[in-house]
Amino acid sequence: MKVIYSSDQQEHAPRAFISSGRLLDSPERPERAERFLEAVRAAGHDIEAPGNFGRREIAAVHGVDYLEFLETAHERWSALPDASPEVIANVHPGRHMAHRPDHVVGQAGWHMADTACPIGAGTWKAARSAAHCALTGMRFLLENETPVYALCRPPGHHAFADMAGGFCFLNNAAIAAQQAVAAGRTVAILDIDVHHGNGTQGIFYGRRDVMFVSVHAHPGDFYPFFSGYADERGRGEGEGYNLNLPLARGAGDQDYLAAVEKGLAAIRRYGADCVVVSLGLDAQENDPLGILSVTTEGFRRAGRLIGRAATPALIVQEGGYLCPELGANLAAFLSGYLDR
Amino acid sequence: MKVIYSSDQQEHAPRAFISSGRLLDSPERPERAERFLEAVRAAGHDIEAPGNFGRREIAAVHGVDYLEFLETAHERWSALPDASPEVIANVHPGRHMAHRPDHVVGQAGWHMADTACPIGAGTWKAARSAAHCALTGMRFLLENETPVYALCRPPGHHAFADMAGGFCFLNNAAIAAQQAVAAGRTVAILDIDVHHGNGTQGIFYGRRDVMFVSVHAHPGDFYPFFSGYADERGRGEGEGYNLNLPLARGAGDQDYLAAVEKGLAAIRRYGADCVVVSLGLDAQENDPLGILSVTTEGFRRAGRLIGRAATPALIVQEGGYLCPELGANLAAFLSGYLDR
Repeated sequence: MKVIYSSDQQEHAPRAFISSGRLLDSPERPERAERFLEAVRAAGHDIEAPGNFGRREIAAVHGVDYLEFLETAHERWSALPDASPEVIANVHPGRHMAHRPDHVVGQAGWHMADTACPIGAGTWKAARSAAHCALTGMRFLLENETPVYALCRPPGHHAFADMAGGFCFLNNAAIAAQQAVAAGRTVAILDIDVHHGNGTQGIFYGRRDVMFVSVHAHPGDFYPFFSGYADERGRGEGEGYNLNLPLARGAGDQDYLAAVEKGLAAIRRYGADCVVVSLGLDAQENDPLGILSVTTEGFRRAGRLIGRAATPALIVQEGGYLCPELGANLAAFLSGYLDR
Repeated sequence: MKVIYSSDQQEHAPRAFISSGRLLDSPERPERAERFLEAVRAAGHDIEAPGNFGRREIAAVHGVDYLEFLETAHERWSALPDASPEVIANVHPGRHMAHRPDHVVGQAGWHMADTACPIGAGTWKAARSAAHCALTGMRFLLENETPVYALCRPPGHHAFADMAGGFCFLNNAAIAAQQAVAAGRTVAILDIDVHHGNGTQGIFYGRRDVMFVSVHAHPGDFYPFFSGYADERGRGEGEGYNLNLPLARGAGDQDYLAAVEKGLAAIRRYGADCVVVSLGLDAQENDPLGILSVTTEGFRRAGRLIGRAATPALIVQEGGYLCPELGANLAAFLSGYLDR
């Protein structure tokens, strides 16, 4: 399988995030990509560098104001007296305020939904490179060279058109899907990360030209909390083209795979001629998040189900954090996929 | 002048808030109220305890879900593994997610706009007591015993109907104004804190039965960042009943007093028969925020302008932080008011 990766992505090395009121070390570390790389190398996959893309392909999904913020925020933040080494938002517009301010502290709250997406000196370069990996993967898919695995880091599925969140800055899967739409394809995104793909949902919520399906732990008591509920079915002409399949806390292979099958059936009915898979590996039983209990074998079976659906696929890396099985989970998913 | 105060308010003693990515000590300290008390005692004002009120008067402004959150959040938060001693939100719904979650971490983001409103064990009791001080003050006003000064702490003007923010939990001024409306009065709120009274604006934005006027530092580069702009004039039947008078950074007595006069003229045209003054003292030149440069004499003149408008007034304490002039600024404002 073709693997797209760039070491530019490693220039994003977030230090901190705030959880339950405490400053903790970010689990979205560069070492994650090293584990993924080792796993795909050991499995004999070909690793290629991403191609070059301009701003246009990214701006087809993300707003110009937001891209300018991502590119300039760290430098502006660093000029503040007594600022932290990374941009972390502390004030948010909420439901009642609608002006985008000029100041970088206000813009941080405007463009960041949580404290888990700190922007450092290398974040923009890394996020852009991750988007280029996804775009390169989609270019291969459009040229019928599939399957492709885009080893993206930072991940993307919590990024909205104009907001970062949950370790994500640019929505790699959405950017790739948008490229497919531009090429006239009918696209579905299947998100199997343990977290709801709230950013991806938000980007396509009012559209029918990209179907979004997400399998995830129920958000009532888990990140992203505010979306991922089964009654979110799309808006306007997008109604009926958004499918959330939340799972109860602790769910294992059986429930997870049943939801993946249900999602694939919906994608088949939709008539997608290509699929972007947002591949999170954090539903795993030993993932530090510890919310679901999918096994390595469960990921192999998920890969096989998706592979057997026989729709050309781009697999985009989302979450999955350091645990002994991290690389094995990726290898199992990819080998399951190829074993279709 | 009658002063309403309860030491129950001192049970709110916030430790931390996050500013520019760093955890700092909260400047909204119990010692503020002690300074205010000393000042009013030295000036010979009468200090009275607040009366008792039920939930109804507070629920006339704030939603039931929000009140339940304020009352229960600290206990639920404290049961989380590794939680901080105070409730501090780290994840927010942003512009694209609309479900109120069950989990206290999600509810914290749903109900708190920023990290400057940490909830501790005594917060609910203190905030309720502050609201009772304002309600007691309004009861005196409605019985023609004016002027009254409600020494409220925590302050209130950044609290929306369903969100805390900026050291505020219950909107004391709005709760008092709502009582006046219920008694058939025509009410205006004049907010002269250095920060825009975003919560108060939000509560009355669609209504014409309470006019809101705010004099504050321009929010483009200052808290609350997302509202307080001159083009925010009200919505629906409230259009034309919201007046923001933002001042340039560094503005002193002349600009501040000109804006107060402009606000009073608008209130006169509106025909208010009572005024709630949201009295912040943080526009002062030596306030630790250091944004405007109003002098102690400037506060005296502001008090005189408001007193000479001759509309029965309830003065409600909002911001103003520890600096050598804090007590003197309050005393000067009140004495200016009485010197009408």
